[in-house]
Amino acid sequence: MKKKISILGSTGSIGTQALEVVEQINDKFEVIALSGGDNVGLLRKQIIKFRPKTVCVKSNTVKKELESEFFDTKILCGDEGLEEICSNTENDLIVVAVSGKIGLKPTLAAIKNKIDIALANKETLVMAGDIVMDLAKKNNVSILPIDSEHCAIHQCINGRTISAVKKLIITASGGPFREKSLADIKNATVEQTLAHPKWNMGKKITVDSATLMNKGLEVIEAHHLFGVSYDDIEVIVHPQSIIHSAIEYVDGSVIAQIGLPSMHIPIQYAITYPERIEGIKSESFSFLDAKRFDFEAPDLEKFPCLRLAYEAGKIGGSAPICLNAANEEAVFAFLDGKIKLYTIYEIVEKMLSSHNLIKNPSIEEIFVIDNEIRIKTRELF
Amino acid sequence: MKKKISILGSTGSIGTQALEVVEQINDKFEVIALSGGDNVGLLRKQIIKFRPKTVCVKSNTVKKELESEFFDTKILCGDEGLEEICSNTENDLIVVAVSGKIGLKPTLAAIKNKIDIALANKETLVMAGDIVMDLAKKNNVSILPIDSEHCAIHQCINGRTISAVKKLIITASGGPFREKSLADIKNATVEQTLAHPKWNMGKKITVDSATLMNKGLEVIEAHHLFGVSYDDIEVIVHPQSIIHSAIEYVDGSVIAQIGLPSMHIPIQYAITYPERIEGIKSESFSFLDAKRFDFEAPDLEKFPCLRLAYEAGKIGGSAPICLNAANEEAVFAFLDGKIKLYTIYEIVEKMLSSHNLIKNPSIEEIFVIDNEIRIKTRELF
Repeated sequence: MKKKISILGSTGSIGTQALEVVEQINDKFEVIALSGGDNVGLLRKQIIKFRPKTVCVKSNTVKKELESEFFDTKILCGDEGLEEICSNTENDLIVVAVSGKIGLKPTLAAIKNKIDIALANKETLVMAGDIVMDLAKKNNVSILPIDSEHCAIHQCINGRTISAVKKLIITASGGPFREKSLADIKNATVEQTLAHPKWNMGKKITVDSATLMNKGLEVIEAHHLFGVSYDDIEVIVHPQSIIHSAIEYVDGSVIAQIGLPSMHIPIQYAITYPERIEGIKSESFSFLDAKRFDFEAPDLEKFPCLRLAYEAGKIGGSAPICLNAANEEAVFAFLDGKIKLYTIYEIVEKMLSSHNLIKNPSIEEIFVIDNEIRIKTRELF
Repeated sequence: MKKKISILGSTGSIGTQALEVVEQINDKFEVIALSGGDNVGLLRKQIIKFRPKTVCVKSNTVKKELESEFFDTKILCGDEGLEEICSNTENDLIVVAVSGKIGLKPTLAAIKNKIDIALANKETLVMAGDIVMDLAKKNNVSILPIDSEHCAIHQCINGRTISAVKKLIITASGGPFREKSLADIKNATVEQTLAHPKWNMGKKITVDSATLMNKGLEVIEAHHLFGVSYDDIEVIVHPQSIIHSAIEYVDGSVIAQIGLPSMHIPIQYAITYPERIEGIKSESFSFLDAKRFDFEAPDLEKFPCLRLAYEAGKIGGSAPICLNAANEEAVFAFLDGKIKLYTIYEIVEKMLSSHNLIKNPSIEEIFVIDNEIRIKTRELF
């Protein structure tokens, strides 16, 4: 029987690649719902190709437009539409590939309805990791990570309980400024910052990769996903980005997941789990082509955002919400030419140090805090 | 309840390390039998410390000696003694760490009695892989590899069926002559040959590591252990010997096992499988200390023994028996100063090309063939 799957954020980078995987192994999947953003042209093509029963769009205008084109497709709109998709218990799996905090409520709706999640949305765990993982555990729902580092750890753990794990080792490419001086980083242009050496991603995440904030957010996600304490999560810089992450077991043995930098494998692994199937033809990895792997410690002087993320994670409660919101606003300000790259760190540091911690914020409080932090952060530019 | 365990070859390198592991986690194991070779002094200490019910020695003289010292220990002797130990169905696991073909018959006896095997004896699979694995499958017996490469693959496969595996990738340090010229290798002294850069092992296996015959024998063992065809087993040279081996799955993802070169982890993994426990404190592996991994293709011009092993393995039947026996005799001749290092290859090549293949030799035929090849090989010096 085919697995019934919905994809939130189907026109984004992960969403389109998820549909490529589904297309390649279409005897395994039936796409029952899609949601797309501003790229309505692409969404239209996806509707024609995959014939989902339900589609969610951003605005009422687009909703009406598509309703007039697709008679047998139910067109929904906005946050309520996403939550309606996630409340359909026909779903075997929902791929949450929207970016930003709009991923949080639909994910919770899916978990409440005992639907497994393939998760590519950082905010879900960074902002509400405790709530999400508790509810998933209670409802026996699997949260299958799509991010390449977390998927690597998921692959390495396969078949073992987390109690056998001593340490998670998350790899980082080091970004475009790995070999630059602190002075160079302080004066980095937007163009230099967006020239990521290994991964082709959106602008916001590329800036986060340059500051290593992205790695810090991944540490917070890993803490929640795998229930490992921050002291047992190590970040190492591996410029080739071939080892996607590793774990050390209690017996001292290390298991690592290796491959070319491509999102097809992690996406396929998450949506076909626990199976491994041939599926999409990615270029095969070869140790002989790779020739060499290097490893070094991250330089926290040059990349203090990584340190901030560990600190916010360890404090817990609303601190990671503050970290995430202040960082996102600062990154947008940097992309707009309003602040320098290093100022991102200074702003996040300032916001964190003046933050009024709330220990166990509810979902509603999380959104209020996020909003307040964003407003206060914007006052700094 | 404690796992009842016997160790054949307890005074050898693997045997003593296996007892170190057992000592460290002695709440898990009861040693019910040991067998030792020429180092009677060490065997005596092991008997006092581990109090096995049964002990097997090499000669009747030693048997009588130990009988007079240990009243409540049953002392056995020779091949029959080993087989008696392996026929005791009280055993949960037998560690076969004897070297040479004397490991074969006791292993078969254990499998017939449905006792799991932790295997550190190459000849068992090289000489009789088809028979041993068929019988193990029929009797639902696990053959748990102790060799670091095979244990690495075993760890990487954990929780998956072999049908999901596309390729085994066996790593090789490259031995002491990796960067030498063919002329240097042809004139290598015994001393140069025994100076292995990464692993401290017995003389015979150290010579095999220098010629890469050792890697070839491991390829044959891997073929039998994991049921993977020779075309899907790749050998790559990795001078740091940190990645102990890896597998590529059908989806293109590669899983590798990593650690310092120490036999404690593979021994512990094999004897505690499917558990992973803290156990022996080996030095912890650190990517930051390792700094760098390199990979290159093995040079089959310089190390043609590896090619011969693949060829013998693919031919199957009695060919690997011929390869193994001719190689061992040639290695002894090299260690005795009778032939040059490169002549080992020439002798094995000659013996293989003139070998009268027997397709499915019985166990008795295997011993006859082995003996005949050794006699013929010795005629060449």
